[in-house]
Amino acid sequence: MHKYKIIIEYDGTQFVGWQKQENGNSIQQSIEKAIEKITSEKVNVFGAGRTDSGVHAMGQAAHFDISKNISLDTIRDGVNQQLRPLPISILKVEKAEEKFHARFSAILRCYKYNIINRRSPLTLNKNFAWGVFKKLDINRMREATNFFVGEYDFNAFRSIDCQSKTSIKTIQSCNLENNNDNILINISAKSFLHSQVRIIVGTLVEVGKGKIEPQEIKKIIESKDRSRAGPTAPAHGLYLIKVEY
Amino acid sequence: MHKYKIIIEYDGTQFVGWQKQENGNSIQQSIEKAIEKITSEKVNVFGAGRTDSGVHAMGQAAHFDISKNISLDTIRDGVNQQLRPLPISILKVEKAEEKFHARFSAILRCYKYNIINRRSPLTLNKNFAWGVFKKLDINRMREATNFFVGEYDFNAFRSIDCQSKTSIKTIQSCNLENNNDNILINISAKSFLHSQVRIIVGTLVEVGKGKIEPQEIKKIIESKDRSRAGPTAPAHGLYLIKVEY
Repeated sequence: MHKYKIIIEYDGTQFVGWQKQENGNSIQQSIEKAIEKITSEKVNVFGAGRTDSGVHAMGQAAHFDISKNISLDTIRDGVNQQLRPLPISILKVEKAEEKFHARFSAILRCYKYNIINRRSPLTLNKNFAWGVFKKLDINRMREATNFFVGEYDFNAFRSIDCQSKTSIKTIQSCNLENNNDNILINISAKSFLHSQVRIIVGTLVEVGKGKIEPQEIKKIIESKDRSRAGPTAPAHGLYLIKVEY
Repeated sequence: MHKYKIIIEYDGTQFVGWQKQENGNSIQQSIEKAIEKITSEKVNVFGAGRTDSGVHAMGQAAHFDISKNISLDTIRDGVNQQLRPLPISILKVEKAEEKFHARFSAILRCYKYNIINRRSPLTLNKNFAWGVFKKLDINRMREATNFFVGEYDFNAFRSIDCQSKTSIKTIQSCNLENNNDNILINISAKSFLHSQVRIIVGTLVEVGKGKIEPQEIKKIIESKDRSRAGPTAPAHGLYLIKVEY
């Protein structure tokens, strides 16, 4: 068998998410179908991040095995051709070693969350950012980001649907960039709990609104109590940027 | 009468363009309807730039007159409320002097054109950039931008539908920014011919592909021959950024 690693960009708006589901179109299944059309082989595609419905990717990573040896360019162009007109695009195809696994070999996942902080509704970024109307205090938010970095029990920052056995995770970096009314929050970790990034962002926005003190983040983490963290930020502001191996 | 100036952002994808037309939804008419709902007055909205179908705006300017004196915040929030769920947003409302005219008082219109130069199809930017698949030579394109700056007869760079009496226009600035596979072309002038920016961009892309020499731009302008310039770049890569008065 030949193993291939692919890097994928997608607009998650119209999909049920990365993962195959009974109802609705998933990104995973769309890519599997496209590969099957060009290889005439049944194929399973394994992704690094199981992004939710509405979440976007600029650098999702995935792998699959096929028995045929097909050139990298042929795979990229052929799969992209079959994917049309879906907003999913294979940016890069590489040969991978037999032991490579897109999900389990990953050492760092980098997400970006895009907020536009203004009073007027969003138009161009409607599906690509969270429009927060109340004025946010960037300095308070920036101060709060520091409290998320490190190894903690993040039980207060995971969805009730989260199936992970442990809630202990290590956030590698969490920082905030600001340009006029645009706020970008960058968060990276080896792995995340379900909705962890979105609950962190939702909590940072509460800090920006003055409802939570930056120093309180520490106590909220210690409480392990989901109800003490902020709301889950909407999916459409979130992007999987890069997966490192 | 009270005159108001508004700054507007919109996603032009689903509209027939700025201007009212017999068939289809225009941005102008959508805004007029929204203002009429909150003022109960018949109103005409005059825009600075008559953007085509698919063209976006981050800073279109317009004006209108109403007999009621309504607070600026009430107009902005009320019109935005009425515009929902259309992707049109009033960013700013100001009182304007009686002699102000959004179209005729403008001294500079600034446009941006967004190209993504890569082999893979676009997803996130599908409606917001022109995906050019053949590798472009940025240095050649940058050299060519200089030949557009100044006062010339731009007859070779206007649509056959252009109704302007004169084709003499003065390009104030034309430059190119490049970040990885993203190419931004910024062009500003007091006023433009119909499709002028898009034909300039289409011609710059021919230069980037090696089909036209940078120095040839001068001769193409001199020829006044539309058939010697490049194709009209697609509408969805173009943004009206700012109008100065």
